[in-house]
Amino acid sequence: MPDTFTPRTVTPLPQPLMEALQAILGPRGIITDPSDLEPHLSDWRGLYHGASPALLRPASTEELSAALKLLYEADIPVVPQGGNTSMVGGAMPDESGRQVILSLSRMNRIRDIDPIDMTMVAEAGVVLKTAQEAAAGAGCLFPLSLGAEGTATIGGVLSTNAGGNTTVRYGNARELMLGLEIVLPDGGVIHGLRRLRKDNTGYALRHLMVGAEGSLGIITAAVLRLFPRARAEAIALCAVESEEAALSLFRRFRDRDETAVRAFEYMSGTGMDFALKHIEGAVLPLSERGDHYVLVDLASSRADADLRGLMEAVLEEALEAGEVLDAALAESEAQRHAIWRLREEHPEAQKREGASVKNDVSVPVSKVPELIRRSSEALKALIPGSRPVPFGHMGDGNIHMNLEQPEGMDPAEFLARSHDIMDCVNAIVRELDGSFSAEHGIGRLKPDMLAEWRGGAELGAMLRIKAALDPKGLLNPGKVLPA
Amino acid sequence: MPDTFTPRTVTPLPQPLMEALQAILGPRGIITDPSDLEPHLSDWRGLYHGASPALLRPASTEELSAALKLLYEADIPVVPQGGNTSMVGGAMPDESGRQVILSLSRMNRIRDIDPIDMTMVAEAGVVLKTAQEAAAGAGCLFPLSLGAEGTATIGGVLSTNAGGNTTVRYGNARELMLGLEIVLPDGGVIHGLRRLRKDNTGYALRHLMVGAEGSLGIITAAVLRLFPRARAEAIALCAVESEEAALSLFRRFRDRDETAVRAFEYMSGTGMDFALKHIEGAVLPLSERGDHYVLVDLASSRADADLRGLMEAVLEEALEAGEVLDAALAESEAQRHAIWRLREEHPEAQKREGASVKNDVSVPVSKVPELIRRSSEALKALIPGSRPVPFGHMGDGNIHMNLEQPEGMDPAEFLARSHDIMDCVNAIVRELDGSFSAEHGIGRLKPDMLAEWRGGAELGAMLRIKAALDPKGLLNPGKVLPA
Repeated sequence: MPDTFTPRTVTPLPQPLMEALQAILGPRGIITDPSDLEPHLSDWRGLYHGASPALLRPASTEELSAALKLLYEADIPVVPQGGNTSMVGGAMPDESGRQVILSLSRMNRIRDIDPIDMTMVAEAGVVLKTAQEAAAGAGCLFPLSLGAEGTATIGGVLSTNAGGNTTVRYGNARELMLGLEIVLPDGGVIHGLRRLRKDNTGYALRHLMVGAEGSLGIITAAVLRLFPRARAEAIALCAVESEEAALSLFRRFRDRDETAVRAFEYMSGTGMDFALKHIEGAVLPLSERGDHYVLVDLASSRADADLRGLMEAVLEEALEAGEVLDAALAESEAQRHAIWRLREEHPEAQKREGASVKNDVSVPVSKVPELIRRSSEALKALIPGSRPVPFGHMGDGNIHMNLEQPEGMDPAEFLARSHDIMDCVNAIVRELDGSFSAEHGIGRLKPDMLAEWRGGAELGAMLRIKAALDPKGLLNPGKVLPA
Repeated sequence: MPDTFTPRTVTPLPQPLMEALQAILGPRGIITDPSDLEPHLSDWRGLYHGASPALLRPASTEELSAALKLLYEADIPVVPQGGNTSMVGGAMPDESGRQVILSLSRMNRIRDIDPIDMTMVAEAGVVLKTAQEAAAGAGCLFPLSLGAEGTATIGGVLSTNAGGNTTVRYGNARELMLGLEIVLPDGGVIHGLRRLRKDNTGYALRHLMVGAEGSLGIITAAVLRLFPRARAEAIALCAVESEEAALSLFRRFRDRDETAVRAFEYMSGTGMDFALKHIEGAVLPLSERGDHYVLVDLASSRADADLRGLMEAVLEEALEAGEVLDAALAESEAQRHAIWRLREEHPEAQKREGASVKNDVSVPVSKVPELIRRSSEALKALIPGSRPVPFGHMGDGNIHMNLEQPEGMDPAEFLARSHDIMDCVNAIVRELDGSFSAEHGIGRLKPDMLAEWRGGAELGAMLRIKAALDPKGLLNPGKVLPA
C-alpha cells in the first residue's frame, strides 16, 4: 500500500448550508482552504488518503449538535478525526470528496478533576498526554499509556477502545470510562457524564459507543477513572530462553502480586536488533544478544512496597529455572527510560529498516508462545527472507505479529502481499480462538475481515444497530462494517 | 405492595406449537402443571406476581435457539428467569397469562476453567456460589459476591450487571465478563465466548447485553475473569463518629493501598440495632452502641501482605483524628464471619422489624455523607416516626437508602406510600448527580423512572436499539423500557 495520493475533486458544501454552518461555528469553526485541509487528508503512516470539502471545528457540544443536525438534514457524511494516529485508517475520509471531517480539537478542556471521587471529566479533544499530566498534577494517575499518547485524543482512544501498555493492570480505555456525553447523528445529545461506579439504568449506550469508531455517535466528553499514583517502581529488561519462558516469567510475577505488574512486554531478538541498529543512543544493557526479551514493569501505590525485592526474588527463581538468561534492573530514572525506549521505538526502528506489515492480533494468554512460534515459521515460509518481528503486550495476549520485508526486496512488491501476510497470521490466530484486531480496531482496513470473522447473527445485530442509530449511514461511512 | 395474588387465567400455547416445542425440548423441557409453575410466578420478596402458560427448560444453546425461533414466529412473549432474586421484578411475567417463562437451570455446566488465562467458561444456569466454589477449587478467585449468591445465576447477574460487596475492588459483573454466547429473539446465535483481554472487532454487543435484563437477547454462557485468591485478610468493625468520618476512613485505606480494600460497607446505628434485635446469635463486638458503623474488609493475594499491620496503623490514625470511636479486629474465621453476618443480615432484620421500602441509589463517592444525612432527614419529615436504615457499599457510592415503617403503623398503609418515599430520596439523589438504580436495575418497578431520568435522546436511542434487535417486542416485555 504505497503512497498513491493524487489531489481529488471535492463536492463543495451547498452555499446555504455553508452559511448556516458558519453562523453556528463562527469563522474559526470551518476550514475549506485546501492547504489547511491537507494534513487531515493523509494518516500519519502515509497509507491512507482521502478528499474532503471541509473540516468542522465546533467549540462546544451545543455547536456540534446544531451543526450535525444541519448535516443530517442535508445528507452529508461526517468523518470524526482525533489525533489522526489510527493504525487502520479509522479517521480518514474516503476519496469521494463528499465527506466532511469533524475535529474536536477546540473542545480540549479538562472540565473537572476530583481526587475524592477519583474522576476526571475531559472533553474529547484533550490529548491523552495532557490528561495524564493533569491527573498527575492532582496527585493521581490516569493509566492509559500508548505510543501515540502525545497526539491521540480522549475522543479517539475511547472511540477505538485503545489498549496499550498498561491494560494488563488497568484495563482498556473502556474500563477507564464511567460516563460519556454523546451527540447522535441527528444532533440529539445524550447527557451521560455521570461519575458513578454503579449505575444500572437501561442499556449501556456508553459501552456501545466505546470502540464504535465514531460510527454510531460522537463522543464529546468523558468521565474517566483515576487511580492513586505509583509510589514505588522497578523495571527490568530480561533475556529469556524462549517464548514459553517469557510466559512462565509472567505467571511468576502475577502469582506473587498481580496488582504490581503494570506492564509485561515481549520483544524478539530481531526487533531488538532493529532498535539497536536504527535508534540513536539505543544500547542493550545485557552482556550478550538474546533471541527473546521481556520488559518487566512493576509499580505500586504502596509507599512501602518492596518492588526491587520482588523483582530480584522472582528473577532469581527464573534464572535458576533456566527461564531467564540475563537481566538488567534499572537503577535510575534515566535507565528506566532507556529500557522503555527500546520497546517504544520498535515501530520506528521497523519503519527505518524497510517496509513492514502490522498484525495487531490477540489470543488467550496461554496461547501466546504458540502464536509467536507458529506465525513466525509460517511467515518465513510464505515470503522467504522476510523477518518476523513479534512484540507487545504479552500479559494481555496481544502481540503485534509484524513482518519486516526481506533485505533488498522492493518495498512496494513486499507491501503488495499485505493481505497474504495478514491472512497467514490470521489463520493461526483463528485456530487459537483469537482476534484479528486486538487494540487498533477495524477502520478502513478490516471491514471485510469483520464480515468473515463475525458474520451471521453477530454481524446482523451490528448492522441493525447501525441502521437504528444512524439510519442515513452518515457517521464515518465505510468504517467498521462491511459495505 | 402487599401480596394480592389470585390465580389468573392463562392462554395455553397452541397445540401444534406445544408439540413442536416438546419435540425440541423433550419431556423435561416444558412445564405446564400449575403447581409446578407456582414457584416461578412470585418473586422471593412476595411483591411481584404473574401468570404463565408454560416454563421452558432447554438443555442446550441449540435447543434454546430452536425454541426461540418457534416462539418468535408465533409471536409468544418470553420472560427469562434466573435465580428469581431480582429486587425489582425483573424476572416476573406479567398478569396477562400469555408470557412464557424461560429458565436455563439445566444449562448449568462449567465448561472450562483455565488458571493460566485466568478464565472460567460458565453456562447461564450456574449458580453464583457454584461458580465461586469452582474457581476456588482451581486455586483462583471469582470475586462477585452478593447476598443472593446461593440462588442467583450467572445469566441473571450478567443480565442485571450485578454489583455487590466487592465492586470497589473488582468492578461490577460487567468488568468480570470477557465474552458471551447470546441467543437473539429470532433464535440467531452469537458465538462470542472469546477469552481475550483485547478484542476490538466491531460493536460491543456483549456490553449491550450486560444489564439489558434479557430484553435484547438471552445470555446462555459467559467467559468470566478469575483472579489470584486472597492469601492475606484482615476484617474490622468500627464505630465511626459521622458519615463524613466513614468517608474519611475509606480514603485513608485507599490512599495507603487501593488494591487491598476488598469491601468497605457503611451501616447506621438503627440498622445495627435491628440486626442485633432480630438475628439469632448477633452480637456487637464493640463496647458500646454507635450511630454509624463501617465494616472494613482488606484482602491481598500477596502471601506476605501485612494487612493486620495496615489495618491497625490506619485505625490508629483515625482514632487519633477522632473519626473512629471504637474498633474490633476479627481474630479468627469465626469472628470474620460474625462481623460480615451483621452486615449481610441487614435485609432480613429489616423484614422482621416490619415493612420497609428499598432505595437502591448511588452518588459520586464524595457525596455519600450528604446523601445519607439529607435523605434521612427528608424521610423522617415525610413520614413521622419512620426509621431510615441507610447501609451498603460506601466505597462505590452505592447506598441502600431504605426506610423502615414507624412502629405500630399498618404495613399496608406504609407500603402504599412507597412511591412518595422513592420520590423523596430520588429528588436528593438527582441533585447530587446520582442514579435511581445503582445495582438492582429497572425491572417492572422503575420503567417510568427511566423515562423521567433518561428521557430525550438517551431513551430514544434505547428504544431504537430495542426495536432493532427485538422488533416484535417479545423478550421480557414491560421491563426496562417504558411502554
